[in-house]
Amino acid sequence: MIFLDAAATTPVRREVLEAMWPYLTGDFGNPSSHHTLGDTAATALASARDSVAAVLGCRPGEVTFTSGGTEADNLAVKGIALARQAARPQLNRVVISAVEHPAVEESARYLERFHGFAVDVVPVDGTGLVAPESLRAILRPETALVSIMYANNEVGTVQPVAELAAEARHAGVPFHTDAVQAAGWLPLDTGTLGVDAMSISGHKLGAPKGCGVLFVRGRTRIEPLIHGGGQERGRRSGTENVAGAVGLATALTLAQARQEEQRRRVAALRDAFINAVLTGVPGAVLTGHPTRRLPSVASFCFPGTSGESVLLELEREGVVCSSGSACAAGSDAPSPVLTALGYEAEVAQTAVRFSFDAAVTEEDLNTAAGAVRHAVESVRALGG
Amino acid sequence: MIFLDAAATTPVRREVLEAMWPYLTGDFGNPSSHHTLGDTAATALASARDSVAAVLGCRPGEVTFTSGGTEADNLAVKGIALARQAARPQLNRVVISAVEHPAVEESARYLERFHGFAVDVVPVDGTGLVAPESLRAILRPETALVSIMYANNEVGTVQPVAELAAEARHAGVPFHTDAVQAAGWLPLDTGTLGVDAMSISGHKLGAPKGCGVLFVRGRTRIEPLIHGGGQERGRRSGTENVAGAVGLATALTLAQARQEEQRRRVAALRDAFINAVLTGVPGAVLTGHPTRRLPSVASFCFPGTSGESVLLELEREGVVCSSGSACAAGSDAPSPVLTALGYEAEVAQTAVRFSFDAAVTEEDLNTAAGAVRHAVESVRALGG
Repeated sequence: MIFLDAAATTPVRREVLEAMWPYLTGDFGNPSSHHTLGDTAATALASARDSVAAVLGCRPGEVTFTSGGTEADNLAVKGIALARQAARPQLNRVVISAVEHPAVEESARYLERFHGFAVDVVPVDGTGLVAPESLRAILRPETALVSIMYANNEVGTVQPVAELAAEARHAGVPFHTDAVQAAGWLPLDTGTLGVDAMSISGHKLGAPKGCGVLFVRGRTRIEPLIHGGGQERGRRSGTENVAGAVGLATALTLAQARQEEQRRRVAALRDAFINAVLTGVPGAVLTGHPTRRLPSVASFCFPGTSGESVLLELEREGVVCSSGSACAAGSDAPSPVLTALGYEAEVAQTAVRFSFDAAVTEEDLNTAAGAVRHAVESVRALGG
Repeated sequence: MIFLDAAATTPVRREVLEAMWPYLTGDFGNPSSHHTLGDTAATALASARDSVAAVLGCRPGEVTFTSGGTEADNLAVKGIALARQAARPQLNRVVISAVEHPAVEESARYLERFHGFAVDVVPVDGTGLVAPESLRAILRPETALVSIMYANNEVGTVQPVAELAAEARHAGVPFHTDAVQAAGWLPLDTGTLGVDAMSISGHKLGAPKGCGVLFVRGRTRIEPLIHGGGQERGRRSGTENVAGAVGLATALTLAQARQEEQRRRVAALRDAFINAVLTGVPGAVLTGHPTRRLPSVASFCFPGTSGESVLLELEREGVVCSSGSACAAGSDAPSPVLTALGYEAEVAQTAVRFSFDAAVTEEDLNTAAGAVRHAVESVRALGG
């Protein structure tokens, strides 16, 4: 099997499991407990936080461990907007892009439904990019928060996050970015990016499901999403998932340590794969930006097929990929991301996404490109 | 080391780790993915849900996996209150008891701060019990939800949950119970208990940190706490922690299978331990109810000492326990639970809690009782 669905999830790395193991076995303490077992757990958690902070170029106190990327997005969008509104009631708008993950979009919609916020959606161009001028134009004195993703999960387009964050900063508005897909592939230094909040998910980069991180800059006020015992400096209550935090820190450190090297190698493989598909499959369309894209994502539409049929054919040939986001798998509706990019519903429904982890090889992708050609041919021969 | 702090956290059981292992290694799929790897993960998640449902005597669709007990409490309290208020705006009060865990209390306070709810606190008697008449008296036509814990985490008192739930049902108000400490020790059949929602935490019963369950009955409406891709039937978004769900289901099934037998054995050991401490330590006071208490919790005050000093002495003698809840460890403030039970601050500050898991032995507790006598004596000799 050639696994080309790494944007949905990744296997836990061996080094990650090894780092987690003590906290799943003998060192099982609760970090809040004031005895040796508790201290050992608290030390491990602190060390994991230090490692994450080193990757993000921030202070350990700016790192909050969560149960995943979705929780981190919810905490950022709701938490910052609500805390700002509590201090300044006139702040009642949030800005998101037209291609956000549902974790951000639905959090914004919650603010609309339950807290009277208006949601301003900044458009993208046909490649999925948000123009800094578009963001500038949509900001208002009442804007409490901007949330624009770092890299898109369906088409891989990488936003000009530093420029967008600068626009928000200039207007005095905090800027959050969902870096769930970017982590492991793109620079994550929060100082260089100039972001005020950033979400990361563990299971997208070789840590287990059930752990994530939210970076929140300095004194940015944030209302917790999960209230209780006051763990994580009051920002996220609940007994800390020590093993998960250690796993995430290990995976993030490993991924970012070789990020530059991996990015170049995998981007070259991706480009060869894209070229092979575009030349081998008549009518194939690359979705997303041709160059400003994740090294790890090649996404296409194959007009005249159905995405689901192509996926079935591909799996029969041993290539596992997806139609887009796993969250929307099985949904009949065309992808809102592709719709935002301007694709007609009947084209959007033919989407197929190939996403790699750092272990991907040239041979895998050559095999996959051949399989795509066969799969599209046979689906078209059968009339879609 | 004799570990008597199982109410703070427990080691992961070997059988639990073994059950989780495939989902931390080869079967790493995202349950939302429509391919073989995804299907395997989805099947494991469904099977875990079936197992939990079997223990709770409910339908699988009534089981929502969360990141832990705190998230489950937040989802229940905020989610049910907000969904009910959205349908009937006059519902703007919630009832909690005076001895709730901060996960419930702070969720209620959030409703107060951000959604205009009033929080009605039903009192407890000197043993920590809520009288059904007290609940009846505090219910109002505007009450959206009642949340009263099954068993208290600091003093072990077990509430008459079925009677309390019946009072709420009679008034047409949904009833949530935090069963985080009860799970593994007390019957959890949601039909017999008559509760509409119930929270369980994995790491209190031999599963890892970072997994929990919220039972929500039938058509009870609930607004999600974490919005996004719509996993868990829309009640809890975010890629499911498959290994955690499998671990929790395994631990819960194991614990409840021997619950009756364990309860009797451990309750007898607990009573012998309580007796040894009360007779061996002059002035020792048992906190909580003398008989309606968790088999696994023996809690005391030792007037004329400081709880923290006694804990240090005990750890020196190889006995690990705590002053009360781990969440509040290190706090200077007297325990709100003991304050609600009527203890003066200077007595409440001498609290020590011993909590067991099912592996506890008579020998452990004999040793611990002797250590307690020595520890209190030496702390008193040093003047507190």
